[in-house]
Amino acid sequence: MRRILEIDPANLTVTVQPGIINAELKAAVAEHGLFYPPDPASYEQCSIGGNLGTNAGGLCCVKYGVTRDAVLGLEVVTADGTVLRLGGKNVKDVAGYALMQLFVGSQGTLGIITEATLRLRPAPPPKLTMLAFFPSLDAAGEAVSAMTARGLGPATLELMDRATIAAVDDWQQLGLDREAAALLLVESDLPGVAAEAELEAAEAACRAAGASFTLRAADAQEADWLRQGRRLAYRALERLGIAHMEDVGVPRSRIPEMLRAIEAISARHGVPIPTFGHAGDGNLHPTLVFSRDDPTAAERDALVRDALYRAAIGLGGTVTGEHGIGLARKPYLEVQRGPEVVAVMRRIKAALDPAGILNPGKMV
Amino acid sequence: MRRILEIDPANLTVTVQPGIINAELKAAVAEHGLFYPPDPASYEQCSIGGNLGTNAGGLCCVKYGVTRDAVLGLEVVTADGTVLRLGGKNVKDVAGYALMQLFVGSQGTLGIITEATLRLRPAPPPKLTMLAFFPSLDAAGEAVSAMTARGLGPATLELMDRATIAAVDDWQQLGLDREAAALLLVESDLPGVAAEAELEAAEAACRAAGASFTLRAADAQEADWLRQGRRLAYRALERLGIAHMEDVGVPRSRIPEMLRAIEAISARHGVPIPTFGHAGDGNLHPTLVFSRDDPTAAERDALVRDALYRAAIGLGGTVTGEHGIGLARKPYLEVQRGPEVVAVMRRIKAALDPAGILNPGKMV
Repeated sequence: MRRILEIDPANLTVTVQPGIINAELKAAVAEHGLFYPPDPASYEQCSIGGNLGTNAGGLCCVKYGVTRDAVLGLEVVTADGTVLRLGGKNVKDVAGYALMQLFVGSQGTLGIITEATLRLRPAPPPKLTMLAFFPSLDAAGEAVSAMTARGLGPATLELMDRATIAAVDDWQQLGLDREAAALLLVESDLPGVAAEAELEAAEAACRAAGASFTLRAADAQEADWLRQGRRLAYRALERLGIAHMEDVGVPRSRIPEMLRAIEAISARHGVPIPTFGHAGDGNLHPTLVFSRDDPTAAERDALVRDALYRAAIGLGGTVTGEHGIGLARKPYLEVQRGPEVVAVMRRIKAALDPAGILNPGKMV
Repeated sequence: MRRILEIDPANLTVTVQPGIINAELKAAVAEHGLFYPPDPASYEQCSIGGNLGTNAGGLCCVKYGVTRDAVLGLEVVTADGTVLRLGGKNVKDVAGYALMQLFVGSQGTLGIITEATLRLRPAPPPKLTMLAFFPSLDAAGEAVSAMTARGLGPATLELMDRATIAAVDDWQQLGLDREAAALLLVESDLPGVAAEAELEAAEAACRAAGASFTLRAADAQEADWLRQGRRLAYRALERLGIAHMEDVGVPRSRIPEMLRAIEAISARHGVPIPTFGHAGDGNLHPTLVFSRDDPTAAERDALVRDALYRAAIGLGGTVTGEHGIGLARKPYLEVQRGPEVVAVMRRIKAALDPAGILNPGKMV
């Protein structure tokens, strides 16, 4: 089930089977001058079916929305074998309940997605790319908040902390500033001179927040290196030991507090937690790193995760911004949402899959 | 329940009670340089609660999305009196099922929305406004398709047909071209010179599709008149008799076919059906007009509506793009969605409101 069934430039849609890899889909529509935005860092390996199951995000979701925002139509097989056709190519449609939105992000627990019609956009112009380096995590967090408050809508707004910068630079030799406590990767894909104006405004916000220096990618290739550096963050951290990536999210104004909480948790438990992520969305990937021969790793991993989840929830945040509840975060669904809300989710699960045969044990 | 509870510029959110009028909300956030996009034509009368219930659209949804796209958090009271807090201020959150999305657009049949946290945007620059006049409806439809295919993303892309133009012009004396079969209202709110470039591209697409002429609003006041002309379309048609506005939607490439179908249905049944609407979304408002003393009005109204709904469904469209199923369109929900899909909707209704006490008889 890896086929592209139709590319429809007149309606800016593509219809696919769920096994197709995100990057294959992107490449196929790019030949028509079109663009499928959602881009998880794993886009060269992950399938659209997985993206739909988790409502996956990615780097450019800060501007273009997450997977659910890109879905116009679905074919879903329910627990009793019924085939549902939901939506289609209508941009607006309020006939009945939002079943399509409900199935997206349900991790296969409500039905199995067998086909999807996705929204495309015209391919935007090549991005202008900027890096800003900061003397403290706080300053980087403040820069993100300032950009949000100033209403900047960059195509990319990513953060890497000192340990992540070092791990990426050791591996990829990008010549990043190892003295900085954090960097922000900011990109604009606005047309013409508007891109330059957007990056100038972002640069001003970074400097006002205390950036030590900023630099622009000299050309498309250098921009690609920098972007690739961010995409490789998790794999770079895996070279340091057993790396366990988390996925907390907070309201954007709370990013500085969440970054401070991560530092405090790291210090308290003696576990390095390099952090990177989609700062423009408030979605951070603190990544626990344990040495491969640490016998206490599993135990401390559980303690640190517990502390991270509770810190995010305490800031009005979420235990998972784009990866999903699955099994690992299942005990925290009720902590975050409250028992009443989870009870409603369970009623929906029972209504659609009374025998519990769809991805059993996951999510609710 | 008409209060604004919080405006949060740092997170670009506003939290409101559902009774607040859309226009009041817009005005309050505008004082902070912020913008709440969804703008039903009735925005000066309609409440946010109603907007949430129907997942309302509007003129600028073509660029900024519909009401559901603007919702970050909800408080909902369920049929058994439980108070649910859903979402909050997180931009990304995949913890559990998309309950929030499900409640939006459910017309109060699954729960009662008592509070909402909505996404704002920084106020965009003043719009540049263009009108294009066409010698045929087909040509206007082709221009819309061409703009979609060229990937133009105007802030407004609205259509009015000859009869609507005449009704608006008779009432408002705007000096519109009464010879034209249709006009498109196209607006850009891109920053700086990008707006000019966008309107030029739109103008080129209109001319290529056969526009007889195009004109720009000379200033903000003239733009406002033209926009107001479109907003008053329904009220202008009400001056002609009993006006019954419909709300079909089709994939954008099928707009010319839908416009031809509306003309054919009008001729077949001898009922004038002036048509206007959100052409950029494929969402059209064919409006049946009957004289006030026509004893056959009710009967012919039912026949014409049946024909319109079936034509839209036959083109892969919907019987309602933004107004909702309610009672009037309820018999067509199953025609459009199919019995299997409606059965799933009913299972969800039964799971959340087993006694059927919430807005009884509506939707499913």
